[in-house]
Amino acid sequence: MNLVERKVPALDEQVFEARVEPGAEVVVIRKPGFRKRYATYATRYGSIDRVLVDPATGREVEVPPGAAHFLEHKMFDKPEGSILERFAQLGASMNAYTGHFYTVYLFSVVEPFEPCFQLLLDYVQDPRFTPESVEKEQGIIGQEIATAYDHPTQRLYYDFLEAMYRHHPVRDWILGSPESIATLTPELLETIHRTFYHPANMTVCVVGDVDPERVVAMVAEDLARRHLAPRPRPERRLPAEGPDLARPAVERRMAVSRPFVQWGVKFGAFPPDESGLRAAVLGDVVAEALFGRLTPWYEEQYRRHVITDRYWFGLSVVPGAAHWEVGGETGDPEAFTAACEQRLGEALSEGLDPGVFEAVRRKALGEFLAVLDSPEELAHGFLTDRFLGWDFYRRLDVLEALDAETATRWLREHADPRRTVRAAVLPREEVA
Amino acid sequence: MNLVERKVPALDEQVFEARVEPGAEVVVIRKPGFRKRYATYATRYGSIDRVLVDPATGREVEVPPGAAHFLEHKMFDKPEGSILERFAQLGASMNAYTGHFYTVYLFSVVEPFEPCFQLLLDYVQDPRFTPESVEKEQGIIGQEIATAYDHPTQRLYYDFLEAMYRHHPVRDWILGSPESIATLTPELLETIHRTFYHPANMTVCVVGDVDPERVVAMVAEDLARRHLAPRPRPERRLPAEGPDLARPAVERRMAVSRPFVQWGVKFGAFPPDESGLRAAVLGDVVAEALFGRLTPWYEEQYRRHVITDRYWFGLSVVPGAAHWEVGGETGDPEAFTAACEQRLGEALSEGLDPGVFEAVRRKALGEFLAVLDSPEELAHGFLTDRFLGWDFYRRLDVLEALDAETATRWLREHADPRRTVRAAVLPREEVA
Repeated sequence: MNLVERKVPALDEQVFEARVEPGAEVVVIRKPGFRKRYATYATRYGSIDRVLVDPATGREVEVPPGAAHFLEHKMFDKPEGSILERFAQLGASMNAYTGHFYTVYLFSVVEPFEPCFQLLLDYVQDPRFTPESVEKEQGIIGQEIATAYDHPTQRLYYDFLEAMYRHHPVRDWILGSPESIATLTPELLETIHRTFYHPANMTVCVVGDVDPERVVAMVAEDLARRHLAPRPRPERRLPAEGPDLARPAVERRMAVSRPFVQWGVKFGAFPPDESGLRAAVLGDVVAEALFGRLTPWYEEQYRRHVITDRYWFGLSVVPGAAHWEVGGETGDPEAFTAACEQRLGEALSEGLDPGVFEAVRRKALGEFLAVLDSPEELAHGFLTDRFLGWDFYRRLDVLEALDAETATRWLREHADPRRTVRAAVLPREEVA
Repeated sequence: MNLVERKVPALDEQVFEARVEPGAEVVVIRKPGFRKRYATYATRYGSIDRVLVDPATGREVEVPPGAAHFLEHKMFDKPEGSILERFAQLGASMNAYTGHFYTVYLFSVVEPFEPCFQLLLDYVQDPRFTPESVEKEQGIIGQEIATAYDHPTQRLYYDFLEAMYRHHPVRDWILGSPESIATLTPELLETIHRTFYHPANMTVCVVGDVDPERVVAMVAEDLARRHLAPRPRPERRLPAEGPDLARPAVERRMAVSRPFVQWGVKFGAFPPDESGLRAAVLGDVVAEALFGRLTPWYEEQYRRHVITDRYWFGLSVVPGAAHWEVGGETGDPEAFTAACEQRLGEALSEGLDPGVFEAVRRKALGEFLAVLDSPEELAHGFLTDRFLGWDFYRRLDVLEALDAETATRWLREHADPRRTVRAAVLPREEVA
């Protein structure tokens, strides 16, 4: 067994890693004293992966929007019944989620760990789809999509992305469309599974008070009996996305009581190396320093009812693209956008306030350390950073070395005030 | 020091309790190995407390709706600046929340614990209100209320409560109304604080890797310098609420794309004793067995689009009142209500399915144990049970002893199919 224990300097973390034939990564973050065991089985495959090379034929195959999410749903469903019930019988909670660049299957349980873990390893590698069950799912997810189309914040989210990106598939709905998922067949789903769920493309991550050697042995045992040939990890193919916006502003009317707005800044891609990780940490902290609740700016906008209790902001990163988003329900969408533009403009010309920046940096440090106590957040952070080519634990070192001056320099290099986008959902016109 | 360590049988929990002059309860749940320290300072005072006896004069004073939430907001605000900033400078996250029968102030921090804890103990016992700051807050919260009035699920929630309860103040908005909070003055807020924030009415609860003796000593030190006279805990005064509903159904039209509906069953009060705790555990588990995601019923309603991804259900308990609520966005509010009524009717006549019940009970056991790893959830569960007169850890024993037969008996005794309520928010009529 090639199990390696990693020391994380300055943190009392016990991180074990192994590579298991034919290529799966296994990570165990041991948490002595924790009752709950949390396990994830994740693939580097999400909604932005829209083309594959079929390992059986070598041919390029187009993947319709929404396929990753659809496949996730279908994985629970076996001819003999739902996986959900089998986890429930073991007293475990199970779930899964699909993002732009990952699909994650997970469970948490106090006891018994091993049968649950075995079940997870097995069902994710066990694709069995019938035409009837695919058809049934097309009805269910078609309805889910129709419902999502009616949700103001969902519409806002994708209107915003479609305005910001010209080519990058992050602009497409993770759910797909009723038309795109209608093209899915059992055969295509199997091809997608064969390509993207090959162990070489996947990472198992267990957080909790478990025996790392036993975890690795169980993964090895499960994979050995599948006799899968080793294969390189599939390459991700993405269209080139330049700095230009699709369009700077977009709005739509819906059945809402008050307007929703989202403003944002388009960055270039954050690469899978140290500079990318640094950009990700800086992007988080600087967003907080500009738009966070600790700023006098926030307080002022809140008092003016430009910002309300429904308010959000943050950095969003996927392979090949990154942006800030600042949004919420607002009394005045124009004032909201103007306040964001002005805030960015002032920070670019005057630099970041060192006092606010230091408070925000300390808060971020505290939050980073707190994540280490939360198996769900830790596994998610570790996996997404891993899939972006970064080492999650390095965030601590980056955070520790930051100051307002460095952050201002970063902001000036990365945030171009000509690359801002505004999307709004407005109430329907009043009818007399 | 009268520090007592409690053993929780079958659980490896270290729970320490002390009573500190003049009457504060201090609870420390020690979590060796946890990095984050989570501290709460909570009072048995919430939105349902609508009358007080002024300890200074002995006179009865009416408390306007929304006062508890308003006071919570004002506690952050000191003439020299916001408490938020002081926690931020210490690298801590702070927050507070007001419920029907509690107000909770909290922070979480990795390091340094003691200055943060000192700050929490101090600011919650340090009411300083100016007419200007009260007036400013009336503007801010007035706006918050106006926004909440426009939120379909908020309206649904209170429409439902107003239909279910005739007298119990759980039917009033926690936020109050613009008119009710307009009557608040610095003097009234001080009287409320003097009454309900007396240490005899409060509980400090710290979860994390801390020294219990040091925690108790710090509370004692803080309270000693305030020279507060001992006093009995204020009695909670609630109007009698009988089994009758205010009305069985209510609906309103709003700017929404799809209907929202909430159906529920009115129970009697769950008393502050073993029978009440048992009812609370049973109410949770039976709701899950009837309306949860593990039931074929749920699957069927989901497939029929009667239930969508926005779906919720559960037991709600406050002193003097308890009910179930089952709600969500739906394609068909009539079908939703009919499905709930039918589900309850069948369970009453045929009894609960033992297989589903056992799966649900195991899930609940697992979730209970998982809460012990989550400082936020543990402190919240411990405090709310304490304030309802129950021992949170006893839930485990109750859960372990349950079976479908007992649960069916409980259901037949407590769930009266004539005491069901339905509230709906419907889209505005289409305009041609």
